Amino acid sequence: MAKEVEFYFDVGSPAAYLAWKQLPKIAAETRAEIVYRPFLLGGVFQATGNRSPMEVPAKGHYMLQDLQRYARRYGVEFAHNPHFPINTLMLMRGAVGLQMRTPARMPVYVDAVYQAIWVEGRNMNDPATVAMVLKEAGFETPQFQGLTSDPEVKEQLKAISSHAVGRGVFGAPTFFVGDQMYWGQDRLDFVKEALQ
Amino acid sequence: MAKEVEFYFDVGSPAAYLAWKQLPKIAAETRAEIVYRPFLLGGVFQATGNRSPMEVPAKGHYMLQDLQRYARRYGVEFAHNPHFPINTLMLMRGAVGLQMRTPARMPVYVDAVYQAIWVEGRNMNDPATVAMVLKEAGFETPQFQGLTSDPEVKEQLKAISSHAVGRGVFGAPTFFVGDQMYWGQDRLDFVKEALQ
Repeated sequence: MAKEVEFYFDVGSPAAYLAWKQLPKIAAETRAEIVYRPFLLGGVFQATGNRSPMEVPAKGHYMLQDLQRYARRYGVEFAHNPHFPINTLMLMRGAVGLQMRTPARMPVYVDAVYQAIWVEGRNMNDPATVAMVLKEAGFETPQFQGLTSDPEVKEQLKAISSHAVGRGVFGAPTFFVGDQMYWGQDRLDFVKEALQ
Repeated sequence: MAKEVEFYFDVGSPAAYLAWKQLPKIAAETRAEIVYRPFLLGGVFQATGNRSPMEVPAKGHYMLQDLQRYARRYGVEFAHNPHFPINTLMLMRGAVGLQMRTPARMPVYVDAVYQAIWVEGRNMNDPATVAMVLKEAGFETPQFQGLTSDPEVKEQLKAISSHAVGRGVFGAPTFFVGDQMYWGQDRLDFVKEALQ
């Protein structure tokens, strides 16, 4: 049986973006499979009493430097999004919906959304911008709206998020290797160790 | 001129304890000097609107596992203190006072206090326990009380802490190499890189 790493991510989290870019290499090196768990970070913050580091001004200011340092170390493009925070409810419904209906297309979608938010600084709070970004990536608006208004999709996003909370998740990205939980893109070295 | 790394620490922070144990090796390897900045983390939390991760139950639970993982990686003893949080006002006044009056004895004192809190799980909220721990390390109670009630010492602890806030510090441990700030014992690899 292949080893697995579960990966909880939300497109609104810049740290989850960095993990999204790094995890496939680690999985390849350790011959592990990634189990993607798209979830709603805002809901998890509400349920756990946690909050974004950006809500503390000095911490938010530092976090951007810290993310830039990691982006340089990884050789990944990263720029803070001037429209942060992004309400990711529709975007994460899109990710969950694709995972349910056409799983092979989910990574294409998430790649496009991460690129738009954390490289190009586009305003993904704006439905017209979302439509344009998705169109560029080969997704049509009616298809996206079909997914985001689908009761099964809505329910699944809630279920993944509340299941995460039940397992002790409070932030993003979060990884599980078996029953061991790791929080933060800066813990990928521990994730790799656990997979080896 | 020797390279310098400034190290903001509070004895109540388990992450600062791990950094306290690791930083001397990094300084030796990079021929850097450590400039110790004993400060009051509680005051910095108040001034910045930050808070201890332990205040979010799921995060606190995880942080203990995370600290244990790092302690194992470092080969350092660590146990959560059942009396956490510790009010460190008097203890940090002691550290600042020694740094002002007999600087060579400050590390001996901080070593003893860290050992008591983060290895032996002693109740350093209890003045009798503090007196016993300090006595074991060669510090007499009247000397300690003299430092902690000294207006210059009180003022210096406030000054270091508010200067820290002015520089963008919001948590512990925090390091500066020149004007570059690094937060967290998990950023010691970046500190080492900056010193190389």
